[in-house]
Amino acid sequence: MNRTPHRSVEVPSPFAERLRHVREFLVKARLDGLLVTSRADQVHLTGFTGEDGIVLATAKEVYLLSDFRFREVAGQEAPWARFVMRKKGIPEELAKVVRRNRLGRIGVIPDRITVATGKDLRRVLAPLGTRLVHVRNVVSELRMKKDVEEVAIIRQAIRIAQEAFLAVRRSIRLGQTERDLANRLNYEMGRRGASGPSFPTVVAEGPNSALPHAKPGGRVVRRGSAILFDWGAWWQGYRSDLTRMVFIDRIPPQFRRWYAVVLEAQQRAIRWVRAGRSIRQVDRIARSYIAERGYGERFGHALGHGLGLDVHEPPSLNARNGARLESGMVITIEPGIYVPGAGGVRIEDDLWVRDTGAEILSSLPRDLDWALLRL
Amino acid sequence: MNRTPHRSVEVPSPFAERLRHVREFLVKARLDGLLVTSRADQVHLTGFTGEDGIVLATAKEVYLLSDFRFREVAGQEAPWARFVMRKKGIPEELAKVVRRNRLGRIGVIPDRITVATGKDLRRVLAPLGTRLVHVRNVVSELRMKKDVEEVAIIRQAIRIAQEAFLAVRRSIRLGQTERDLANRLNYEMGRRGASGPSFPTVVAEGPNSALPHAKPGGRVVRRGSAILFDWGAWWQGYRSDLTRMVFIDRIPPQFRRWYAVVLEAQQRAIRWVRAGRSIRQVDRIARSYIAERGYGERFGHALGHGLGLDVHEPPSLNARNGARLESGMVITIEPGIYVPGAGGVRIEDDLWVRDTGAEILSSLPRDLDWALLRL
Repeated sequence: MNRTPHRSVEVPSPFAERLRHVREFLVKARLDGLLVTSRADQVHLTGFTGEDGIVLATAKEVYLLSDFRFREVAGQEAPWARFVMRKKGIPEELAKVVRRNRLGRIGVIPDRITVATGKDLRRVLAPLGTRLVHVRNVVSELRMKKDVEEVAIIRQAIRIAQEAFLAVRRSIRLGQTERDLANRLNYEMGRRGASGPSFPTVVAEGPNSALPHAKPGGRVVRRGSAILFDWGAWWQGYRSDLTRMVFIDRIPPQFRRWYAVVLEAQQRAIRWVRAGRSIRQVDRIARSYIAERGYGERFGHALGHGLGLDVHEPPSLNARNGARLESGMVITIEPGIYVPGAGGVRIEDDLWVRDTGAEILSSLPRDLDWALLRL
Repeated sequence: MNRTPHRSVEVPSPFAERLRHVREFLVKARLDGLLVTSRADQVHLTGFTGEDGIVLATAKEVYLLSDFRFREVAGQEAPWARFVMRKKGIPEELAKVVRRNRLGRIGVIPDRITVATGKDLRRVLAPLGTRLVHVRNVVSELRMKKDVEEVAIIRQAIRIAQEAFLAVRRSIRLGQTERDLANRLNYEMGRRGASGPSFPTVVAEGPNSALPHAKPGGRVVRRGSAILFDWGAWWQGYRSDLTRMVFIDRIPPQFRRWYAVVLEAQQRAIRWVRAGRSIRQVDRIARSYIAERGYGERFGHALGHGLGLDVHEPPSLNARNGARLESGMVITIEPGIYVPGAGGVRIEDDLWVRDTGAEILSSLPRDLDWALLRL
């Protein structure tokens, strides 16, 4: 093992609070440590963005087990954590830390660890008398409710996405392909500081808009085109996620009908959002309206999802989620209507759940008039 | 469960061959089915690129269990597979398929499935008397050796990356930031048809080049800059991965020394590459040369890795890999020297392993003169 000399730096905010939360959990669950194996959970707890490694949080220390490639980055991003440079496999290096600190019970999160890694860890830890215990994902739970610093970052990720979209929208020309537009949108987000798109940008013309996760292809902008944009900016680790329609020169009558239904469903759901409300009920508000208008079979996905370090994170806003909205959650609301072969409409905004209702973080116009672009 | 009517379409090449391979494995391992849980493995076996789902291959059928969002895409990409639209969770839908087909033993790949999913599947399958058996990853093994169609796609992914780089290189100006250049490079790859970069593009100026996975930031191009580019294009699911240095107007003496060592190490390793050679020995050729020249401590990562649907896939070319190179593998060779605070040099090319040696798929010049750019 190759330990860099430990600088005793105080843990800065917001990591100090997050660690405190995890350590309260360690006490409650009678654990000597928690293994944090998912990248986004690691970033949340430590700020370390290296692409390979494992984090072990104990009552006194936070260990970053990673490799040569990320040593310097770790020193910059989390100088208060102990970087353990692995020469062999992670299990072997972990065993050394566990032995030195005499850790008896270590929590692992079953949906964040592979069966193979679980086996490997047990193999090296069992001889030390150390037990791996399945625990709930405290870090993921923590991530659901955003603190003000996180919301400030998400606001900026939304601002970048919106400004980039407006720039691309101004430059749309007949004959451009879906691919051109998606590439241009990614570029405009990058120019405004995005590390990249939040997810592969969707630009779907005409019948392609019926595919909720369409890949941009060779379909071109023409008079009468209905184009669905679903995009977001990745900024300082956080992600925005928006959907808007653009109609070129005229709005095909079926799209006009779908748009009115989707927008009203979205607005009803947004008005219903508030801390304490049942998530399944928010979904139902939008879904039942769409069904009433005869499109129930055309809206097959969840109404929305949590948004943060991951583009899809808890809570999922679907008909089976019996939990309640909590103050601080950042969620999307994105109903849609999809008619295979004909096309689809989706409208998506990002919301911050508060005790008094929803603060809508995204601010692009939603009305049909604005969606019409005259070339 | 919601089954779309099954169209009996013949399985097209290359999926027919891959399926045959998997079915031979089913027979040998006395399995009634194999669960394919990783995205890239699913793409390899079926062509289905939907972002959510699980694949079950049996002796007679291939089932795609996914959701509403990907139904239409599945019909386009793998019309010969049976699409099972899940309404509830995947385990429940899987149980129905298992019961209907009376499958007794199903293989799962332990490093491709989470502990939580493993538990969920056992919970629904145990009452049916069905056993989950841990098996080696046949699909991943299959993926190591590329067929000619795959190599043709990778060649194209390399071509896109190279042309985009040349375009950006021509347009480098003093004062541009690392971020500008990375964003521009992504855009130029997109213009040439890339679905995106293979991985977050690295552009690292000066001391940042000492970080093997640097994030592009605000450092600017100036006279005397040493700039490391590590980038690749993602095309039709496959990825290229290249690294080149650009020196602006002059080459700092330490970079000149490092460059000569890295280039010679790379060339020695490339000349050694051939089907049948020990992987660890290829690594040693480059590593021992770098060590001889006094930089042993400055080259801390693996010499290279397999390249395909994932940007890092087996085999890893490191000092611990006792396996042998096989004809058909596509690998990177990318030695480097990194001096924290001062800078680093890496040179990376993509190779196709053949019985007679390596075919170098990438063709950008590697000599130091070319790396010098006069503005």
